[in-house]
Amino acid sequence: MKKTIAIDMDGVIADIDTHYINWYERDYGIKLLPENIRGLTTDEAFGGATRKFVFTPGFFLTVPVMPGAVEALKTLSEIFDIYIVSAAVEFPQSLTEKLEWLNTNFPFITWKNIIFCGNKSIINTDFMIDDLIRNLDTFKGETLMFNSLFNYNHNHHRRVNNWQEVVEFFKDKA
Amino acid sequence: MKKTIAIDMDGVIADIDTHYINWYERDYGIKLLPENIRGLTTDEAFGGATRKFVFTPGFFLTVPVMPGAVEALKTLSEIFDIYIVSAAVEFPQSLTEKLEWLNTNFPFITWKNIIFCGNKSIINTDFMIDDLIRNLDTFKGETLMFNSLFNYNHNHHRRVNNWQEVVEFFKDKA
Repeated sequence: MKKTIAIDMDGVIADIDTHYINWYERDYGIKLLPENIRGLTTDEAFGGATRKFVFTPGFFLTVPVMPGAVEALKTLSEIFDIYIVSAAVEFPQSLTEKLEWLNTNFPFITWKNIIFCGNKSIINTDFMIDDLIRNLDTFKGETLMFNSLFNYNHNHHRRVNNWQEVVEFFKDKA
Repeated sequence: MKKTIAIDMDGVIADIDTHYINWYERDYGIKLLPENIRGLTTDEAFGGATRKFVFTPGFFLTVPVMPGAVEALKTLSEIFDIYIVSAAVEFPQSLTEKLEWLNTNFPFITWKNIIFCGNKSIINTDFMIDDLIRNLDTFKGETLMFNSLFNYNHNHHRRVNNWQEVVEFFKDKA
């Protein structure tokens, strides 16, 4: 039986940090530099603007794809059972947008392997790739922390900086 | 730590069999009797009409609540961590309808405890209540098969006939 990987969306296959920065510049005329907001919370960095963005129709539909994610997921899905696991239920309008975004950008991932949840504590796979500490902390399998501006100060999970590193990590894990 | 229960929607807390029968009578003028379609597949019983229904806007929003489900879930949620786990991703428009239906009928269940997935094989709770054999068969914890017209011929999971029996079962399981 293939080993299983739970893969997060925002901050992992969807480049939501860049999307926040772009929308913040568009709406407030301020171009934040990643190196200046690294290690802050999103509220500290964007003053609460992100909480408005995530409830704005179209926001989740237009997040840029994380560089290298499509190729990496294609490669991994040949050897592992991969599941997209996204904490989307908090933002009801995001559900259909996220599904459409996945169908557009990752058409090789079928609905059978997509999970939208409130929290990830009952997800049981062999591996989890996520950028949020609270998801990784409750996970029972092996964790990979995908590098983001907002997990910069946490180091109790294995950090991966990009999708090339993820593919490299999984080379001998099948 | 509280034990965890994964609870299905359709056929378990949502009385979808009755909903199918009502819509079938409304659209085709034929009133099917439960005792005449018991043990068939939904396609055998409704000739494919249900596949049209599940893609019809409003269908999932108007499913009647399963008798006794609200009171039972209130009781269980005091003692267990309960998660609503619904295989909804196959029908994209159902996602927001199902969320609205839950918020209306089960307002005490928060978004943190709601999971929409394609299949349930990576769900890890202590117990699962479901009417579909394929969900129960891949589950690693203890299973309860909620009685439905369409699982009539399966007997390799513990059958519960109604929500009173479920509450009774869980009395000494905390």
